[in-house]
Amino acid sequence: MSGAAEPVTAAIIVIGDEILSGRTKDRNIGYIAEYLTGIGIDLCEVRIVPDIEGEIVAAVNALRARYTYVFTTGGIGPTHDDITADSVAKAFGVSIDVDPRARAMLLEYIKPEDLNEARLRMARIPAGAELVPNPVSKAPGFWIGNVIVMAGVPTIMQAMLDQVAPKLATGVQVLSQTVRANAREGDIGGPLKAIAESHPEVTIGSYPFLDEDGRPNSNLVVRSRDPMKLAEAVAAVEAMVAALRR
Amino acid sequence: MSGAAEPVTAAIIVIGDEILSGRTKDRNIGYIAEYLTGIGIDLCEVRIVPDIEGEIVAAVNALRARYTYVFTTGGIGPTHDDITADSVAKAFGVSIDVDPRARAMLLEYIKPEDLNEARLRMARIPAGAELVPNPVSKAPGFWIGNVIVMAGVPTIMQAMLDQVAPKLATGVQVLSQTVRANAREGDIGGPLKAIAESHPEVTIGSYPFLDEDGRPNSNLVVRSRDPMKLAEAVAAVEAMVAALRR
Repeated sequence: MSGAAEPVTAAIIVIGDEILSGRTKDRNIGYIAEYLTGIGIDLCEVRIVPDIEGEIVAAVNALRARYTYVFTTGGIGPTHDDITADSVAKAFGVSIDVDPRARAMLLEYIKPEDLNEARLRMARIPAGAELVPNPVSKAPGFWIGNVIVMAGVPTIMQAMLDQVAPKLATGVQVLSQTVRANAREGDIGGPLKAIAESHPEVTIGSYPFLDEDGRPNSNLVVRSRDPMKLAEAVAAVEAMVAALRR
Repeated sequence: MSGAAEPVTAAIIVIGDEILSGRTKDRNIGYIAEYLTGIGIDLCEVRIVPDIEGEIVAAVNALRARYTYVFTTGGIGPTHDDITADSVAKAFGVSIDVDPRARAMLLEYIKPEDLNEARLRMARIPAGAELVPNPVSKAPGFWIGNVIVMAGVPTIMQAMLDQVAPKLATGVQVLSQTVRANAREGDIGGPLKAIAESHPEVTIGSYPFLDEDGRPNSNLVVRSRDPMKLAEAVAAVEAMVAALRR
């Protein structure tokens, strides 16, 4: 970390029985993780919780107290198992009702005669929340306190994240550089540990992979917000890797 | 839930900065979720945490107190960022050292002259733990209390899960049946809610998708451990869907 501004942090809460049963495979965590890293926000924790109000409330309250932002995905559709908005309202201790702004957005997409009670659920927004427009299918997400509530359908979630991103406080971007070791992790673990210990302001991760010839290899990923510290540590890692080949 | 035995529950802790930065996309959560569902174990929560001892200890202790089993993935390799075994030992308040059984397993794969300090890290096992054999690359996982520690590399994790599964207490499998609504979620939300309320012993999920003709459609998934209750609720859902078409 550079001595600059305080890091901006985030957590994700994925809400949905279908993810926990394995029926649906999550495609949002990796996307949001990469997106946040790209704008200098540190994703620090992810939780996947079921469609149970108490679990959602507990996760929202635990994480919003701890991180700059909490992003939720899922549970904002028109059916009885979509309980995210009500749960977030409960977490904040605010009331929730059909929001005229959200209702107007739904009417851009839904004929008035089709705006039944189920669809009106999608306009239920906690008091005091800002809406997050949904360019795909209109039913909005929302932003209350430091919690940003988004859809679970990946295309809609991604569009909502694009709407929200310009308004986020962003940090200094973490820079990263990958050094291919051309060695097994076990052969570099010792010297790599020494480098990590003597460069406390960078983080160094080691990620094994099988190379083009099917041989065990490792990528060493050096990360830092400070370009100088990054360059110093990368030089040390490259020297270590070169020494191995001698 | 049927009136039978108590449900067997589980949580997953995914350990790794590379997942939180988005550099690596997790492929284990969905696999384990489906696997556990298949053997009647309810996956109730997932957390993804960074390579920070305090975070791993906190997650292990929070979840092992709450669920029948906790599965961890990642952080058991030979490099300095592999801190899962030490963190789990700390969570349980037990000592950790090179385990002779684990060392012997490593020597099936690694020449004695290559068994350096880094590789020996992979034989560090908390006192009192059982080993989980690794048929792929020998370095074992372990099982302590109700916590099962597995590798992060998907092929190795999957092989470890196969080793562990026969020893798990399994529950009555959740049965599920999917009814295709041929309707938008918003058109069925009302009647579906009524069915869900009058069948409290099943859970009914609604999952939108775009059908072959690109039209919004919904799959209604009814789940229960009790085949009779399941059949009754499915019949109600099918009657509701049929009534829509009239």
